[in-house]
Amino acid sequence: MNRDIPEFSLQRMPIYLNYLRSLPDDGSLNYISSGAIAQALGLGEVLVRKDLAYTGCAGRPKVGYPRVELIAALEKFLCINDFKSAVLVGAGGLGSALLAYGGFENYGIELACAFDNDPAKVGTTIGGKPVLPISELDEGCKKYGAVLAIIAVPAQAAQQTAEELVKAGIKAILNFAPVQINTSGDVKVINIDVAANLAILASML
Amino acid sequence: MNRDIPEFSLQRMPIYLNYLRSLPDDGSLNYISSGAIAQALGLGEVLVRKDLAYTGCAGRPKVGYPRVELIAALEKFLCINDFKSAVLVGAGGLGSALLAYGGFENYGIELACAFDNDPAKVGTTIGGKPVLPISELDEGCKKYGAVLAIIAVPAQAAQQTAEELVKAGIKAILNFAPVQINTSGDVKVINIDVAANLAILASML
Repeated sequence: MNRDIPEFSLQRMPIYLNYLRSLPDDGSLNYISSGAIAQALGLGEVLVRKDLAYTGCAGRPKVGYPRVELIAALEKFLCINDFKSAVLVGAGGLGSALLAYGGFENYGIELACAFDNDPAKVGTTIGGKPVLPISELDEGCKKYGAVLAIIAVPAQAAQQTAEELVKAGIKAILNFAPVQINTSGDVKVINIDVAANLAILASML
Repeated sequence: MNRDIPEFSLQRMPIYLNYLRSLPDDGSLNYISSGAIAQALGLGEVLVRKDLAYTGCAGRPKVGYPRVELIAALEKFLCINDFKSAVLVGAGGLGSALLAYGGFENYGIELACAFDNDPAKVGTTIGGKPVLPISELDEGCKKYGAVLAIIAVPAQAAQQTAEELVKAGIKAILNFAPVQINTSGDVKVINIDVAANLAILASML
């Protein structure tokens, strides 16, 4: 779903949700205006209104958005109430940090297990998640009903890892390996190349 | 510089550079066409041509781009030959993984040191980088001439950390804390919220 929304708008949806969830729940903010949201997040007010229109939650003139309803609309838009299972491949430094990170549950996603080829790691748990041998990738993905995967392997192993994940039924991949991975048309990929992002920032100075 | 380029085009520049650098250097690929680049990276050919036009490197009809010149143009565009120094705040799991990651040098960036408030970490080195007390943030940024910073602290500490970094002369921030940070107008920020990216992927299924 959500295919008609511009990618940048989609990327802001979790930002709105995080912000609205962070507000005090003491009844002082039953309504919030697009202007207030825009100011808090450093965005343009027109942009905020356009983005939030995709959720189907209507703001009321001079009053704003009913906050609880807007949160529910954003959660529905991001499909947060549809529980999804994810796996991680590559339990090195970055992979281990992600396994220990608790933030996925805020979005209805459970990071179920990791796969690694290091015999010293296989059989242990990291962040409470079991580390399975890479040879059990297909079986493990199916066991946990995983549709999402995080790739945190070295660059040279990323493409093969992606292909094995797709064969195991994974539908979307978050790739931290600093290399472009190619998948068949209907598998979604977001690449997060940390060094490249720092380079982009540096080039903007 | 580079202010006239659309953000999505800028984000693809390191991808082109990585790809061109990864090709064999045996003389078999002195020229490469926009079509070949597009196919390898799963992008549209027109888009590739538009993006690469920003570098000022001209492709030759029916021949393609001179590869070495295109790499040099991308490096110049991304200011890779201007050495820049970066610091990291928050040497937890993710921060430690980033300190140990060697990929920044590919972009002319040196991650010089880390700051943390954990006495057990201060005074140690992680990935060969010294961990300094957070109380020395201003002094440390200035000592290393840092203009870039990575924030890898918990969400509740991110805004204050950003403000202290800006006071210490930092001009651009890569923020991994899952919260929007606000800075004054001329400081650039890229937010990388890992869980939010996974949620965006999940919502696209």
